Amino acid sequence: MQTTDKNRRIVLNERPKGEPNDNTLRLEDASIPQPGDGEVLLRTVYLSLDPYMRGRMSAAKSYANPVEIGDTMVGGTVSRVVTSKNKRFNEGDWVLSQGGWQDYSITNGEGVINLGSDTPNPSWALGILGMPGFTAWAGLEFIGEPREGETVVVAAATGPVGATVGQIAKLKGCRVVGIAGGEEKCRYATEELGFDACIDRREGDLKEALKEACPDGIDVYFENVGGAVFDAVLPLMNPHGRIPVCGLVAQYNATSLPEGPDRSPLILGTILTQKLRVQGFIIFDTFGHKFPEFQKVMQAWLKDGKIKYREDMVEGLEKAPQALNGMLKGENFGKLVVRVGPDA
Amino acid sequence: MQTTDKNRRIVLNERPKGEPNDNTLRLEDASIPQPGDGEVLLRTVYLSLDPYMRGRMSAAKSYANPVEIGDTMVGGTVSRVVTSKNKRFNEGDWVLSQGGWQDYSITNGEGVINLGSDTPNPSWALGILGMPGFTAWAGLEFIGEPREGETVVVAAATGPVGATVGQIAKLKGCRVVGIAGGEEKCRYATEELGFDACIDRREGDLKEALKEACPDGIDVYFENVGGAVFDAVLPLMNPHGRIPVCGLVAQYNATSLPEGPDRSPLILGTILTQKLRVQGFIIFDTFGHKFPEFQKVMQAWLKDGKIKYREDMVEGLEKAPQALNGMLKGENFGKLVVRVGPDA
Repeated sequence: MQTTDKNRRIVLNERPKGEPNDNTLRLEDASIPQPGDGEVLLRTVYLSLDPYMRGRMSAAKSYANPVEIGDTMVGGTVSRVVTSKNKRFNEGDWVLSQGGWQDYSITNGEGVINLGSDTPNPSWALGILGMPGFTAWAGLEFIGEPREGETVVVAAATGPVGATVGQIAKLKGCRVVGIAGGEEKCRYATEELGFDACIDRREGDLKEALKEACPDGIDVYFENVGGAVFDAVLPLMNPHGRIPVCGLVAQYNATSLPEGPDRSPLILGTILTQKLRVQGFIIFDTFGHKFPEFQKVMQAWLKDGKIKYREDMVEGLEKAPQALNGMLKGENFGKLVVRVGPDA
Repeated sequence: MQTTDKNRRIVLNERPKGEPNDNTLRLEDASIPQPGDGEVLLRTVYLSLDPYMRGRMSAAKSYANPVEIGDTMVGGTVSRVVTSKNKRFNEGDWVLSQGGWQDYSITNGEGVINLGSDTPNPSWALGILGMPGFTAWAGLEFIGEPREGETVVVAAATGPVGATVGQIAKLKGCRVVGIAGGEEKCRYATEELGFDACIDRREGDLKEALKEACPDGIDVYFENVGGAVFDAVLPLMNPHGRIPVCGLVAQYNATSLPEGPDRSPLILGTILTQKLRVQGFIIFDTFGHKFPEFQKVMQAWLKDGKIKYREDMVEGLEKAPQALNGMLKGENFGKLVVRVGPDA
């Protein structure tokens, strides 16, 4: 439990081979840090859990530096200001920062967004109004470029990215087909989010089901999982189709490449003959300058009830490692957030 | 030899498994067709040989319909008008058309470009001023988007696409690294075309050589071959790199996928972490509206001596099958054109 006399933090204990296990992360106690001049002490209220975190546990070359052994795991947080020696922040303000997996953190304010003292749904800054929502919007708008009447497919359909991609595509007049794990999620995607169809990846033949759900082929596939879903999607892509790639959750725990045959000629061949555009992006890196536009658009959609948002809230910092593992297997239902401490 | 009393034509005899052999194509004699109202009889002077032709021999789904068994092989031709019953064409005019692998063809003029009666280098319409040159220009300009100081890599560096890509990239102030088969071609690429480096893919370790030639990584890889070159390029791609895909010659004769492991997760993973844009295009299909602009730009460059162009001329229609096979192995040196008949 969060207290006022120590800083619990979860550090990287060893680099995982495959799925993270009990030895991967370690909960330890530290003293609460003291802010210096121009700095702010933050108390974590909400910690975001996101698939990219698996990547940071590995030493492999990626778009961001790995977490070092013994260092606190990185992560987006919504926190409250405990003590401020920085004019931009007042005691009690809600802030969005990269506080990491711990109760308390220090910041000089750089890259920290002040959400004010009276913000509704502060945790949404980690989801629909933050990185996942922005990923969905920018990837779909600027790479997916969906046109009315086209078919858009997205996996992890009830996750914070997938659900948002699908709902935006519906607003643009597309046929939207989701893929999700389990009947309950599929029902949510069609009944609550308004998807035209949602395929349960745990039931039956994914390729056949997808073909049936996409009688006119696929124009945009928003790639956030990879693996079997990508395999099923590829042969159905229409000429001039677009595949924004924001994540590949299905392969993050892989310790080696899958058995052959080597299907890379098939991928390149399809890209050529179908004239596909496949483009990876790392949201703030690629589209950072679009963030203000995103916030304006998304806030309006939320206000008008055009976009729905669901959180999967886990209670307690100590539950974070298990919850992250569950997410990598698709066990969460909505945006996974850890409540680390009370609001006030 | 071309005569005035019969039409030699090369037809698809059977679909090849792997590399085309002596049974794939068949030379046969037919009577010279007669033009009806609005039609024109053309005599083939030059036949273009291009890698895409291998694809048309196969029944597999592609961007264009396959040639049917017994049908004349398709191909771009520069021909002269023998008889015209169409106002747009006069006897003796040079025309660029899809005449196919034969001495004579009939057209109603649709899609046929009249080059006039006194055009210099009429065969260039099959190369630097036609499909391959346009492919190089548009793929580089609109997908590759090279910026000054960036590194551009292209294979088949002395072929009509590769040589043009590299020379345009040099005009834009890029470092240009070619890959070609053999010392002579490599020397031509650096000494005649002005490439900064050219790697002989037949000598030594391609990956090592490429790494050495691209000390700042690769920003644009113009993909026209696939296979081992793609494998060597991928790990060197810089963040936000672009890969226009116009051809995959190295895999056109493949009868099955290569042995494992399956490297597709590696490709997708690199696209994601390096934020790559990989985009296939079929030139007239994707960029057809840009053709007039291309012609203007390229004609000016040729006039100013800024772009050099080399043809590999084969004498006689009957040599076309063997020449096509050679090209699929990289044996041509410059744009491969068959002289089917005399100029006049």
